[in-house]
Amino acid sequence: MSKFWSPFVKNLVPYVPGEQPKLTRLVKLNTNENPYGPSPKALAAMQAELNDNLRLYPDPNSDLLKGAVARYYGVQSNQVFLGNGSDEVLAHIFHGLFQHDQRLLFPDISYSFYPVYCGLYGIQFEAVPLDEQFRLDPADYAKPNGGIIFPNPNAPTGCLLALDAVERILKASPDSVVVVDEAYIDFGGETAISLVDRYPNLLVTQTLSKSRSLAGLRVGLAVGHPDLIEALERIKNSFNSYPLDRLANVGGAAAFDDREHFDRTCRLVIEHREWVVAQLQAKGFEVLPSAANFIFARHPRHDAAGLAAKLREQGVIVRHFKQERIAQFLRISIGTPEQNQALIEALGEL
Amino acid sequence: MSKFWSPFVKNLVPYVPGEQPKLTRLVKLNTNENPYGPSPKALAAMQAELNDNLRLYPDPNSDLLKGAVARYYGVQSNQVFLGNGSDEVLAHIFHGLFQHDQRLLFPDISYSFYPVYCGLYGIQFEAVPLDEQFRLDPADYAKPNGGIIFPNPNAPTGCLLALDAVERILKASPDSVVVVDEAYIDFGGETAISLVDRYPNLLVTQTLSKSRSLAGLRVGLAVGHPDLIEALERIKNSFNSYPLDRLANVGGAAAFDDREHFDRTCRLVIEHREWVVAQLQAKGFEVLPSAANFIFARHPRHDAAGLAAKLREQGVIVRHFKQERIAQFLRISIGTPEQNQALIEALGEL
Repeated sequence: MSKFWSPFVKNLVPYVPGEQPKLTRLVKLNTNENPYGPSPKALAAMQAELNDNLRLYPDPNSDLLKGAVARYYGVQSNQVFLGNGSDEVLAHIFHGLFQHDQRLLFPDISYSFYPVYCGLYGIQFEAVPLDEQFRLDPADYAKPNGGIIFPNPNAPTGCLLALDAVERILKASPDSVVVVDEAYIDFGGETAISLVDRYPNLLVTQTLSKSRSLAGLRVGLAVGHPDLIEALERIKNSFNSYPLDRLANVGGAAAFDDREHFDRTCRLVIEHREWVVAQLQAKGFEVLPSAANFIFARHPRHDAAGLAAKLREQGVIVRHFKQERIAQFLRISIGTPEQNQALIEALGEL
Repeated sequence: MSKFWSPFVKNLVPYVPGEQPKLTRLVKLNTNENPYGPSPKALAAMQAELNDNLRLYPDPNSDLLKGAVARYYGVQSNQVFLGNGSDEVLAHIFHGLFQHDQRLLFPDISYSFYPVYCGLYGIQFEAVPLDEQFRLDPADYAKPNGGIIFPNPNAPTGCLLALDAVERILKASPDSVVVVDEAYIDFGGETAISLVDRYPNLLVTQTLSKSRSLAGLRVGLAVGHPDLIEALERIKNSFNSYPLDRLANVGGAAAFDDREHFDRTCRLVIEHREWVVAQLQAKGFEVLPSAANFIFARHPRHDAAGLAAKLREQGVIVRHFKQERIAQFLRISIGTPEQNQALIEALGEL
């Protein structure tokens, strides 16, 4: 460790994102990107913004995009927070809403960035075990805590928690912020945003990287009570006045306005997911029930790391986590029909 | 304060950026944007990236842009850190390099985001007074400290510190990180990047928002010893894996590669600055010596807030800070010849 570092930096264990290979011929099913491109209207909006006005700062409040999100969900603009990808939104949430005396709760199998944020901001946490089938039991969260966060559908399992179960968690911890991280909600779940007006402790996060196919643009959001949003705005305005660039503001807004493209591409991903699940099951895989744009599967007779390596040799990349409990699973993004076919062929006879 | 907030949020006093008016007819000389557009090659590079590949995450390491910066300055890629605007780079620096037992030092008249970062990360600081002519004396920084940061040229004064004076500060505090914030260096200063190989405690920050005319794109950078860069990479990878989007990566790299456009537009801004200075002096203004793309001036017989209001009525926006010592100054960005002319005309007889 360098003497110049702030002391906590020595113990930081950063998040490791999925590989972004520079080879373009690979069948890339490892980071849950959308197999379809973004809304053509989003591309056109960015096209119109690509000019000398880039010399000017963006709107620091991103009013255009906040308005589009608010319209889409039927909430007020002051219930919407925006960030440079939902990872930035989550970072500000951990910083501004989760630093309390009691421990933050999240599932033991969950988005692996959560414990990293805890390291960054010195937050104590408890990883609450999912059950044998990787299901979240709301009763496990009905205990003193300094906040609760879970993805829904969960990552990397893809399993969905029903909205009434989400509500039970909210009711049991009225003095804690409960964050429902809905990165994958549009592929088969029902958003908890419908509950924000009834639960001032609820914050819902989403991303434009998955269902709106703009991972390359970096836009994330949170929706909740204006008091929660205000904490995030304070952090944001003490960190970076302009986290969203001019292109992200207009592209994101146009993506939210184009419901037809959104609905059609989400539907296609869901259809193809069902096909992939059936093919994998036919090969003997156990596949967890998925409401996401990926599936989480294990084969009772084949080692997951070995399968991932075999696929890689044939140009198909999937994600394998070495973590306890899930080391025998593969997380496989749903691709185009051609990519899904390539996956199944690369697996071959098992 | 909401019971849900992390306790420190209550006392946060966020930075207030200059107004970004939605009216486009205003002569906008308040946020130091470049009057000329970005490199046409940068626009073309972004144009080529505006396609279905936006569905894919960007390169989390931004190797292309790091390479362009490293080539431009003759350093190694592991001496370069990138962020979503230099404000994000500065935030990570305060978090990762300035949390020490002793106090951080910066000038009393300086970038007003510095004390905000200190509030965000709980850093104790001492604001070291500039002299009567708003000059920084290196001797004032030769005392125990937990880090030093100053803009060069300074903001909002525009005054430049010579490189040998920067070096005296570095030599006097070999156990502290010294950050030279060079947002405006290309308009008349000499970068301290030439010193990074000799001073492992030196970190130089820059932005693409000013001399490279990409404020709307959000790209900032730091150059220094690989050990300092590693601290920032750890923070970044514990905060947001992909702070730079696909467009920022290619646009930023093309902007660094287009030296002709860069040299020509910087030269024009410097020429026009000299014209504005002469015009203001002819009207009785005292103008601090500027090496930036703005000037800082006061009129001995006219109140600065009143002048700013008078200009605003005529559609010309400049920046006025209510802060002690500088409340009688206006900070005026250098615009196109037409904008500068409009400023001088709007001031009228004084």
